[in-house]
Amino acid sequence: MPKRLTAHEYADGLLAGNRVRLSQAITLVESTLLSDQELAQQVLDAVLPHTGRSVRMGITGVPGVGKSTFIEALGLRLVGQGHQLAVLAVDPTSQRSGGSILGDKTRMNQLAAHPAAYIRPSPAGRSLGGVTRSTREALLLCEAAGHDVIFVETVGVGQSETAVHGMVDFFLLLMLAGAGDELQGIKKGIMEMADALTITKADHGNEQAARLARREYQNALHLFPLAPSGWSPVVTTSSALTGAGVPEVWEVVQQYMQHTQASGYFQRRRQEQNLHWLHDTIRQTLEARFYAQPDVQQRLPALEQAVREGSKSAFGAAQELL
Amino acid sequence: MPKRLTAHEYADGLLAGNRVRLSQAITLVESTLLSDQELAQQVLDAVLPHTGRSVRMGITGVPGVGKSTFIEALGLRLVGQGHQLAVLAVDPTSQRSGGSILGDKTRMNQLAAHPAAYIRPSPAGRSLGGVTRSTREALLLCEAAGHDVIFVETVGVGQSETAVHGMVDFFLLLMLAGAGDELQGIKKGIMEMADALTITKADHGNEQAARLARREYQNALHLFPLAPSGWSPVVTTSSALTGAGVPEVWEVVQQYMQHTQASGYFQRRRQEQNLHWLHDTIRQTLEARFYAQPDVQQRLPALEQAVREGSKSAFGAAQELL
Repeated sequence: MPKRLTAHEYADGLLAGNRVRLSQAITLVESTLLSDQELAQQVLDAVLPHTGRSVRMGITGVPGVGKSTFIEALGLRLVGQGHQLAVLAVDPTSQRSGGSILGDKTRMNQLAAHPAAYIRPSPAGRSLGGVTRSTREALLLCEAAGHDVIFVETVGVGQSETAVHGMVDFFLLLMLAGAGDELQGIKKGIMEMADALTITKADHGNEQAARLARREYQNALHLFPLAPSGWSPVVTTSSALTGAGVPEVWEVVQQYMQHTQASGYFQRRRQEQNLHWLHDTIRQTLEARFYAQPDVQQRLPALEQAVREGSKSAFGAAQELL
Repeated sequence: MPKRLTAHEYADGLLAGNRVRLSQAITLVESTLLSDQELAQQVLDAVLPHTGRSVRMGITGVPGVGKSTFIEALGLRLVGQGHQLAVLAVDPTSQRSGGSILGDKTRMNQLAAHPAAYIRPSPAGRSLGGVTRSTREALLLCEAAGHDVIFVETVGVGQSETAVHGMVDFFLLLMLAGAGDELQGIKKGIMEMADALTITKADHGNEQAARLARREYQNALHLFPLAPSGWSPVVTTSSALTGAGVPEVWEVVQQYMQHTQASGYFQRRRQEQNLHWLHDTIRQTLEARFYAQPDVQQRLPALEQAVREGSKSAFGAAQELL
């Protein structure tokens, strides 16, 4: 157990770009201990004025789509251009599989070894709410430590995408060509969140299928409503193996940033996201306190059963518990 | 002010199909008076065993898409076949415009005059949470009163669609042909909720454009992930004016019902919806109580401002308030 530092020691270390302090501070925001959480808030408050100056990019896609290799290819390019990159993973299931964290680090070994890249796996053993809160705060800490590009990675099959969509500026969806509806495995609703799609593995004779998929998705997305940003989603093809199409994805991100910064949408959205997290934190805390009451825990299962079967109205059962 | 009835008098009247009792009971669930709400819950609990035996269908589309004429055309057909139809509207903005309620009733005058149809406008002056709760309970009361088809209508531009999607079995989206992204006005995310789309106003020389739009949307939706129901959304064209394509929409609904009842998804989804409303009611009540505290109301604006600007962390501000 390392000696406990003060909030200022963490903050100063962080702001100086000390990688060890960054990791320790993220461990603090991930901690469920009350004393750690209080210290974490002091660190956050101290570094807040130095946050916000990064491109926050959500990246999602189901297992098998080539997410790690894509992130490594794009990430190596960005650090090669002088960017400081942080890669955060949001994967509430990782505590179950156990292997995905190590797997990711192993698969991104070139990027993980680069001094300008910082890769942090998803905290284990936490609820979705807990994971998304600590990821959002880790993102702020990475910004304070000087990272100007942050990737937040999810697996596209659960509910974490909505939460991640609420903490990033740009949302990228990775898709395979010709996998068919049933094979894509993506959760409904995620497609409409995407600011860009890239059809991965456009190599080894798969180029034409990828181009065809690109055209189909581009046509399809044009029929869908525009986002409040006024941005029309872009579909590209890419190959992490050959590198083809990888720079183009970053160009799309930059175009999006220019478009939304010029319109004022970018700043407005960030403010709305901040406000959203305030009310979300309040909601989560109120719910957690309520459901933790012994009386509620004792009576809830029977009431849930009655409501599920329709022998008791949802509102009536809620009133009983409240 | 009518004489106050007992819960049993409301329930018995309702179950006997007494239209006046139904309207009075819905007024009770819409009331914000505590005594009315308690009585409403007694009525609901008494009639609950007689609910659930209807097709619950959400219908949405932006103003101008021809929603009222479509609902009238399909509704008249259903009551002509012996169905008892109830049309409920969820429109949290109607209190502002004031005119939409009367407008709807006027536009659906043939249906409104039919003895087997019951049309109930959105309750005025309520929050979205209040409107969706009372609409859901009105739906149960209509079922108890013998209505075997319930339409829940929204305007497709706000947040009520997600709530309505959570209270219906089938979600229909009405679209115009060739209106272009910017004209559709539909909120992002609603397309992926739809179990069927119908391109309206396929008449007066607009037939071919409607057919083209139908094909485009059908192709586009095939590229999107399947819903957990395993149902692939169907796109049709229809004309409320000529009646062409209106029966086909109902055929799609029946196919959907057969598909989901055979797979067990229908029953499972209804149970999940019930449970969802329980936890949703708890959440809404906890939040309403929290934000109603004078101390919270006094301190919230300054904290919101600090969080919006990024000078205070969302989590820290939430902790201060809590």
